[in-house]
Amino acid sequence: MIVITSNQISEEQVQHIVSEIEKEGLQAHVSKGADRTVIGLIGSVNPKLAEHLRQMKGVENVVKISKSYKLASRDFHPDDTVIDIKGTKIGGGNLVVMGGPCAVESAQQIDEIAQLVKAAGGQVLRGGAFKPRTGPYSFQGVGVEGLIMMAEAGQKHGLLTITEVMTPEYVDICAEYADILQVGTRNMQNFDLLRKLGTCGKPVLLKRGFSSTYDEFLNAAEYILAGGNPNVMLCERGIRTFETYTRNTLDLSAIPVLQGLSHLPVISDPSHGTGRRELVEPMSKASVAAGADGLIIEMHTDPDNSMTGDGVQSLFPDQFAALLKDLEQLAPLVGKSFATAKAPASEFARV
Amino acid sequence: MIVITSNQISEEQVQHIVSEIEKEGLQAHVSKGADRTVIGLIGSVNPKLAEHLRQMKGVENVVKISKSYKLASRDFHPDDTVIDIKGTKIGGGNLVVMGGPCAVESAQQIDEIAQLVKAAGGQVLRGGAFKPRTGPYSFQGVGVEGLIMMAEAGQKHGLLTITEVMTPEYVDICAEYADILQVGTRNMQNFDLLRKLGTCGKPVLLKRGFSSTYDEFLNAAEYILAGGNPNVMLCERGIRTFETYTRNTLDLSAIPVLQGLSHLPVISDPSHGTGRRELVEPMSKASVAAGADGLIIEMHTDPDNSMTGDGVQSLFPDQFAALLKDLEQLAPLVGKSFATAKAPASEFARV
Amino acid sequence: MIVITSNQISEEQVQHIVSEIEKEGLQAHVSKGADRTVIGLIGSVNPKLAEHLRQMKGVENVVKISKSYKLASRDFHPDDTVIDIKGTKIGGGNLVVMGGPCAVESAQQIDEIAQLVKAAGGQVLRGGAFKPRTGPYSFQGVGVEGLIMMAEAGQKHGLLTITEVMTPEYVDICAEYADILQVGTRNMQNFDLLRKLGTCGKPVLLKRGFSSTYDEFLNAAEYILAGGNPNVMLCERGIRTFETYTRNTLDLSAIPVLQGLSHLPVISDPSHGTGRRELVEPMSKASVAAGADGLIIEMHTDPDNSMTGDGVQSLFPDQFAALLKDLEQLAPLVGKSFATAKAPASEFARV
Amino acid sequence: MIVITSNQISEEQVQHIVSEIEKEGLQAHVSKGADRTVIGLIGSVNPKLAEHLRQMKGVENVVKISKSYKLASRDFHPDDTVIDIKGTKIGGGNLVVMGGPCAVESAQQIDEIAQLVKAAGGQVLRGGAFKPRTGPYSFQGVGVEGLIMMAEAGQKHGLLTITEVMTPEYVDICAEYADILQVGTRNMQNFDLLRKLGTCGKPVLLKRGFSSTYDEFLNAAEYILAGGNPNVMLCERGIRTFETYTRNTLDLSAIPVLQGLSHLPVISDPSHGTGRRELVEPMSKASVAAGADGLIIEMHTDPDNSMTGDGVQSLFPDQFAALLKDLEQLAPLVGKSFATAKAPASEFARV
Repeated sequence: MIVITSNQISEEQVQHIVSEIEKEGLQAHVSKGADRTVIGLIGSVNPKLAEHLRQMKGVENVVKISKSYKLASRDFHPDDTVIDIKGTKIGGGNLVVMGGPCAVESAQQIDEIAQLVKAAGGQVLRGGAFKPRTGPYSFQGVGVEGLIMMAEAGQKHGLLTITEVMTPEYVDICAEYADILQVGTRNMQNFDLLRKLGTCGKPVLLKRGFSSTYDEFLNAAEYILAGGNPNVMLCERGIRTFETYTRNTLDLSAIPVLQGLSHLPVISDPSHGTGRRELVEPMSKASVAAGADGLIIEMHTDPDNSMTGDGVQSLFPDQFAALLKDLEQLAPLVGKSFATAKAPASEFARV
Repeated sequence: MIVITSNQISEEQVQHIVSEIEKEGLQAHVSKGADRTVIGLIGSVNPKLAEHLRQMKGVENVVKISKSYKLASRDFHPDDTVIDIKGTKIGGGNLVVMGGPCAVESAQQIDEIAQLVKAAGGQVLRGGAFKPRTGPYSFQGVGVEGLIMMAEAGQKHGLLTITEVMTPEYVDICAEYADILQVGTRNMQNFDLLRKLGTCGKPVLLKRGFSSTYDEFLNAAEYILAGGNPNVMLCERGIRTFETYTRNTLDLSAIPVLQGLSHLPVISDPSHGTGRRELVEPMSKASVAAGADGLIIEMHTDPDNSMTGDGVQSLFPDQFAALLKDLEQLAPLVGKSFATAKAPASEFARV
Repeated sequence: MIVITSNQISEEQVQHIVSEIEKEGLQAHVSKGADRTVIGLIGSVNPKLAEHLRQMKGVENVVKISKSYKLASRDFHPDDTVIDIKGTKIGGGNLVVMGGPCAVESAQQIDEIAQLVKAAGGQVLRGGAFKPRTGPYSFQGVGVEGLIMMAEAGQKHGLLTITEVMTPEYVDICAEYADILQVGTRNMQNFDLLRKLGTCGKPVLLKRGFSSTYDEFLNAAEYILAGGNPNVMLCERGIRTFETYTRNTLDLSAIPVLQGLSHLPVISDPSHGTGRRELVEPMSKASVAAGADGLIIEMHTDPDNSMTGDGVQSLFPDQFAALLKDLEQLAPLVGKSFATAKAPASEFARV
Repeated sequence: MIVITSNQISEEQVQHIVSEIEKEGLQAHVSKGADRTVIGLIGSVNPKLAEHLRQMKGVENVVKISKSYKLASRDFHPDDTVIDIKGTKIGGGNLVVMGGPCAVESAQQIDEIAQLVKAAGGQVLRGGAFKPRTGPYSFQGVGVEGLIMMAEAGQKHGLLTITEVMTPEYVDICAEYADILQVGTRNMQNFDLLRKLGTCGKPVLLKRGFSSTYDEFLNAAEYILAGGNPNVMLCERGIRTFETYTRNTLDLSAIPVLQGLSHLPVISDPSHGTGRRELVEPMSKASVAAGADGLIIEMHTDPDNSMTGDGVQSLFPDQFAALLKDLEQLAPLVGKSFATAKAPASEFARV
């Protein structure tokens, strides 16, 4: 860490800062510049000291040098994390596609869609049983029964399943039925939920908060990792900007940036990232070209009548299938292999 | 609701849209314009129909006319909500000041600060027992004991108390000890928490999500109101923008805007809204001049050694006292009365 | 256009609005809803009337149905604009790559780089002679001599040239020497400059303002088109968001969105869009996968010593060449042909 | 300046960086930390060296310590700049109010409004002769005649005048007729215009770019100051954020922040900052309470029929007069004196 002083600081104030640093068992290196003095700290600085120094007289700024996340950082874990779920590998050189409806609506609906996802070459079935909704009067999901319907559809068609969990008390039941638990964008900093997921025993797909920086995103992942769960996927799903034509602005630079800063797989969500069906195909391709380790895409057999009203961003089944065909061509050009799940359906039986 | 068609739509497609609307028992008014046709819907439109229409062939856009929140809207509740807590009135022509540390650290600390808040003319003691922190390695609050310490300090000095609740399972215990429950910015759309607060029996101060629109903010309030709790305060605490010099950009226009759209009291938080001590005083005054119904301000006896490191935005006690003196002069100029809590200390006894 | 009334409006106020509309020779269609009345206007509405209505008593909102740009809109020009410059076609099914340094520094530098751009398969040489700089003490470009150096290098190596023009008085001289004139992000709404470019006789690459919406962007293009110049390219170059790790957030959704709203070619600038060399390659590929009609990329033989200090986002020549090889594979997968300029060098002679 | 290395850097790379620094005649101070090495530079660093270092192998980041603006900084000019124009003082302890229409429409209109501004206690008459408009088909101002009409109205009623100048070629004529020249938000980084204003001989009100940081804002002011013109006012006029209910988000924290960083007067523009008439009064008061040195407010005798359509944010004359009365009460509470221009009308004669 570095302390930058104002151009008015006295020698006495510098000495006071140095003594505060040394009191904490750290070394202080003082460099006097033309109009400012800079004091470097050697050793592990706790955040309280950082703030204390920032507030001392004569201090203009304090600059962190080390990152506040460790387990999520590639600095300390140079190799890619590869998450192996029943034989499907996420991360490394693999491309994974997760498809399905915004919400599970009925056993028949999810079964039908699972069959289509599998036929198109997808490896994971997505679907929400509990839905976060902006207003209290909207459809809020079918609940636990939806979890069961989705687990059965996944098992029958040989697909992994992913579902969103919104509150700590539902983590256990979701972990019982789904292969991957998803944290939604509004919950990226629901710290109690993150802590609970650290011990849930299932891989977690963590969506970026719609106004969260990369640094905050990786710190949120750190909560889960620090709890003992190493299987975290990062998901870029669009950020809020001044542009309102698209529902969000899908930040594809996040893909190579996060892959540089972290070893965790990075998934792209072009459905929520754009909020418009006609943009899902080009942005899916762009995501893969940018190096994404996977995609999570909304697909619905009857999007115009979806219960959540999110159908506007759902692909029709034939669009989904055509897209995955194109991705098979595209993936090798960026060094990715796109292979459907190899495990026999029996492996998908719920333990 | 209004459906706007593309300039390519056929007469047949228009008729199809009209029949879909009438199927739901609503009337459709068709207006043919120079290059577009507009179809107005008469009756209460459910969101599913809205989305269905948006996705039909020939439809370019669907514009909501009615607001999605009702209970929070001034349309249906023209008079200001005034929340009366043990004789202290929030809303209407009153100005309330809530002061205290970011986090409760010890019984002595909170008692000392409570005494200072009261002496300066504040009516509510703020303090966090559970702290939301960006990274998992930071101080996370002293927990339930902190609630008890704060309740005792409030009771002793004749102050109401407010504390943040982060997860549904802690609502009951917080409601037992505190007079007002606070929802933090990261939890504005933690819908399970909002629902739980709808039945908690205590007034709630709801902070605006740091990237939430006024509309989303009022919809979040609607969750609490719809649960049966009419005592909600809205709190502007700064939004995230491209400017990083300040921690957030305090959006003071939110004060008159929200007071226009809603009947709920609007509180300003210049401490988190700026993240810089030297800005708290001018932005507190600006908040009151803009018409705020109250302020929530961080104050600490030793901010440079606060346990959360948020001391950088905390006022010193003498700054807090001087500010409140100035507010006494300012409040009447904007039609507000700033009076300390009139209730005898006995009323503050926990039931 | 549609006028939406408040829920308090009287019948008399509605009639007053209607008469104001009819006074302008337009028809008004009144639809009474459950709690609001909606008034549709038939005919071409001038902006003054729109504002007048918005401010009338009882009016809550006014919604534009038609777009304010016409010439830039695909509604009135369904086919792609293809700009043919000396045999190189931009738009339609072609992919164009523009490469070169941030600033022209010397005749030798630009000649050397032109040779490398050509060898790699690029069709256009980019380079700034006049540089917009945030502070007054930075290098501001070599001026008119730079234009001459670049024209000579382009002519020698059979490349088109593009350069930025910052002020109306330099349009003529830039148009004399360069094949394409570029409007920088800070000048997207420099309306005097746009007007002047409408009559300059050369194609224009218009960069999106770093905080401009799609609508404002297309209105800025409209200024040039309305002046009589049909050869405008739109360039997405990153927008300003809360994320500061990247210099800007490259908004790749802009590519399919703008191609949908407009018939003009859309170019992507991953260099300024990210501000980081290591992101240029993945974001170039992502841009092409998203459907871009071209790329504008900074390349420098000695980026660490570039005079503008923008070298941090410039590719090395070998990176540039390797990227273009990869794009040759990628382009056909998204229906684009990537062909180097076919014109003989003689055609590049300045007239 | 400080160079922060990656945790992988070799001793040899550190030495290479040091030698590059020393080659430029500067000293380098090396501090080895637990996982990173930090190199401080002593002496005046030119921007090219900064960028060169940023790009060297093993360098993770380069942190500027000194500010890039000098003349605008309070560091080197501790006392407030007070601009005296014909006896009216702007800056220091004075509050100045500028009022008038968005655009000059006719001699009668501007005369009538000038009379009202003066009667209400305003000191400066605002009005646009040349108007920047998003689309090419909107009213663009009455031009030079408008300048003359406004100069005459100002002279007759004893008011200073301010008008916007959009392009370098109009600086001279605007400077001939107006007392203060205004740079609009879209031109904050029109560097040719800023340079020209550096030598125009009249005070300049520089509006903040709607997406510009404080640092960029002060650098833009530096262009004018560096040209030899010390009389610059900074104007906060709202920034672009995700919130679209208001036209912009008026960033009132900018007032105390800019007054801390700079010695230049800071003016607030609540009309453009909110875009809604009903917010102008509360945000004007809030601006003064936050410490603004002045306000620039749109007022129109017939806002519903203003030619620019900006009437929606213009006050009616009686609202303007009532607001200024309230400000007279408010100003002394924040240490400001609000006095109308003392100069006799004769002084307002154009030289």
